[in-house]
Amino acid sequence: MILLVLFSLIFSLSPSCIKTQENRPYLETAERILKKGLKEQEAYSLLKDLVTIGPRLTGSPQAAKAVEYTHQKMLDLGLENVHLEPITVPHWVRGTAEEGKLLSARLGSHPLSICAIGGSISTPKKGISANIVEVRSFEELQQLGEKARGKIVFFNRPMDPSLLNTFGSYGQAADQRVQGAVEAAKAGAVAALVRSLTLRLDDFPHTGLMHSDSEVREIPAACISTKGADFLSASLKKDVSLRVHLKLSCQNLPPVNSHNVVGQITGSERPDEIILIGGHLDSWDLGPGAHDDGAGCVQSLEALRLLKELGLQPKRTIRAVMFMNEEFGGSGGRDYAQAEERKEESHLAAIEADRGGFLPLGFGVGGNPRTIRHLQRWEYLLQSIGMCWIKQGGGGVDIAPLAEQGTILIGLIPDSQPYFDLHHSALDVLSAVHPRHLELGAVAMAVFAYVLAQEGI
Amino acid sequence: MILLVLFSLIFSLSPSCIKTQENRPYLETAERILKKGLKEQEAYSLLKDLVTIGPRLTGSPQAAKAVEYTHQKMLDLGLENVHLEPITVPHWVRGTAEEGKLLSARLGSHPLSICAIGGSISTPKKGISANIVEVRSFEELQQLGEKARGKIVFFNRPMDPSLLNTFGSYGQAADQRVQGAVEAAKAGAVAALVRSLTLRLDDFPHTGLMHSDSEVREIPAACISTKGADFLSASLKKDVSLRVHLKLSCQNLPPVNSHNVVGQITGSERPDEIILIGGHLDSWDLGPGAHDDGAGCVQSLEALRLLKELGLQPKRTIRAVMFMNEEFGGSGGRDYAQAEERKEESHLAAIEADRGGFLPLGFGVGGNPRTIRHLQRWEYLLQSIGMCWIKQGGGGVDIAPLAEQGTILIGLIPDSQPYFDLHHSALDVLSAVHPRHLELGAVAMAVFAYVLAQEGI
Repeated sequence: MILLVLFSLIFSLSPSCIKTQENRPYLETAERILKKGLKEQEAYSLLKDLVTIGPRLTGSPQAAKAVEYTHQKMLDLGLENVHLEPITVPHWVRGTAEEGKLLSARLGSHPLSICAIGGSISTPKKGISANIVEVRSFEELQQLGEKARGKIVFFNRPMDPSLLNTFGSYGQAADQRVQGAVEAAKAGAVAALVRSLTLRLDDFPHTGLMHSDSEVREIPAACISTKGADFLSASLKKDVSLRVHLKLSCQNLPPVNSHNVVGQITGSERPDEIILIGGHLDSWDLGPGAHDDGAGCVQSLEALRLLKELGLQPKRTIRAVMFMNEEFGGSGGRDYAQAEERKEESHLAAIEADRGGFLPLGFGVGGNPRTIRHLQRWEYLLQSIGMCWIKQGGGGVDIAPLAEQGTILIGLIPDSQPYFDLHHSALDVLSAVHPRHLELGAVAMAVFAYVLAQEGI
Repeated sequence: MILLVLFSLIFSLSPSCIKTQENRPYLETAERILKKGLKEQEAYSLLKDLVTIGPRLTGSPQAAKAVEYTHQKMLDLGLENVHLEPITVPHWVRGTAEEGKLLSARLGSHPLSICAIGGSISTPKKGISANIVEVRSFEELQQLGEKARGKIVFFNRPMDPSLLNTFGSYGQAADQRVQGAVEAAKAGAVAALVRSLTLRLDDFPHTGLMHSDSEVREIPAACISTKGADFLSASLKKDVSLRVHLKLSCQNLPPVNSHNVVGQITGSERPDEIILIGGHLDSWDLGPGAHDDGAGCVQSLEALRLLKELGLQPKRTIRAVMFMNEEFGGSGGRDYAQAEERKEESHLAAIEADRGGFLPLGFGVGGNPRTIRHLQRWEYLLQSIGMCWIKQGGGGVDIAPLAEQGTILIGLIPDSQPYFDLHHSALDVLSAVHPRHLELGAVAMAVFAYVLAQEGI
């Protein structure tokens, strides 16, 4: 690239909104946080440690180790009020004998890349073999009437690639995984097989949670990779009488004691007024959950590290919470909000990072339009650290129960384009995280939490 | 993730600025372009084809094949005025015998990951072995006086990780690669070795162009990987008398005939008024240049495909240009601007995409503040397709020569965080490109070019 042109590009690209310090306070503070963060990139080091523990499924020994690790890390960082808050969590295990196979007299036998959906019961030890009915929706399933009885219902509606917000595509397709087994069981099916919730075409199955219904018989349920789903669908067109063999060895074990992990920088003027930042410590079990939600946890820790080491003492308390069990029912967030200690505290705002450690674009804010407009006065500050906007929306599963006490719920919103490529799958690994993207999210949390701690809502 | 919360997140996150169609025209058009683009993701298919050709170094047979490929693709898309414009380009070849080695009586012999800088002369056939002087700047080199004579000057100033805009970090460090050999030669050195321009610590050397000075003796120049640079620097602290052996077999061959590739949708009302969109077809030779600048080329082609297939006939001409030889001196852009045909045409605006196929954030616009403010009225439209802003800045090497005729220069500005990880290295491959990011850039070019073609500047 020709340097002359390059230089002129670079120096003219600083945000046009940064004019004077006088009516735009905190710009210098934001820059200090940004520079220190990008220089040291400690969020990535923290994440590297965390993922070394392995997948952190709620109730697992690895989840317990992650509690220990983050608790110790908070002590090492010199945070205050560092403690564990006990909660109870479900304990489901996948088991080792997981298998899917297409069996056809005409097409032969082919392995299918599948995984049990979280919460599923196991198949009989030898597995289940049955014919397939393929549907795209619950309506289609109902129209089949008795035709699904004794069969495996194959839900094969892909995520819509044409939506800009991939969370929208996910939301439109997730009913199949969440409610598919219950609907299939109602129709008399012996199992449910669901197309993985990803926009990629590959051989990785994606898991996630399923609902059960005490009034409906439980049946085994698995997700199939998108390539596997396309292959199965094409094969069905050639041989409608093919069978699928499914073997799952999962177990729902008795609940387990676990913990939320809490630490903070106590406010110098209003210590009982709290700005919470957090993510969830548990992940799914197919990968180490580097993005979901290792990223949100380490970004919260890193935000406090940056503030502390820069000597930025907030007037109100900024507290990091590593919530346990977001993925398997959200008990961590609920128990945190209902804990006895909360009665003495007032949570002004809670910022959750649980959309992956990708380039942060803005914050989504719940609450009424006046609150949002009021917070939008900080957009110039976020723009100075590379973000774009504050919009309505946001929040997060773990902080949602705080809404009852009037807490403003805020979500860190990064680029959503690559998220579902890896969400809940073996692809959610450290190498899928860019150190600078991850760090910019931590910087964003630090800057926004600090300004809220200084200025209130 | 709990679906109830999820749904409420998704549907509240649509941009707050989109209110009515009446005073915000083209929203529906932009949405059609976006949906078609994201659904079909043809930019990625085009890129897949293009990178199959291999690295497209100016003057190479692969560059000629890329001319053929894109020319044919323009014909296949049914574009108008499809033609090649002849230009002359340098022809440098790297050669196969490229080698770097650290030689120390105390530390032993260690391979170093190096590559010749574009334009470098070769070493003697057996290579050069010499002692090393390490410097961080030209000032430091000058202060060394005669100490650099007969040695290899090792420029080891890293890119600054603390800047938000990585192009800024690049711009601050690139003098070492561009001008290092000339400065080293002035000091009497036998070769220059330059720390690769990347923010990553890895074993991949990054190449790029170097200047020469007819008044200064030419010496061989190579880049060394960042890990190699750190190793060499640490080794020098242990053994200041170590030597480095460098072998380069590059050749500067006679210039070659090549082409810019041109195709367009001719305007229905003002065909001679042109909105140009483009990228450069040549790449460096270490990798297939998927981001630099395969991305910009296929995004320009894809933008025209989207408009054409949607039946969006522009009033003014929208022209795609695949410029040849951006990397080796920019002759494609200069010759395009000066060609005889340009005398009959008026280029209102030119949009270049040459910063990688990452998530597009906005457009940088050159020209006076009034022009920029005027164009900023389209920010709502760009925000509806996920972008953030229109700011001062932008442009691009290939379109810069059009400034003389008053053309407004515009650059597509994507996320810059990962760009220099792969820039000018073997890492710039298809798998480093996300299909949705790439497509969103094409959508952005289509939307902005179309609205400029309809409304003028």
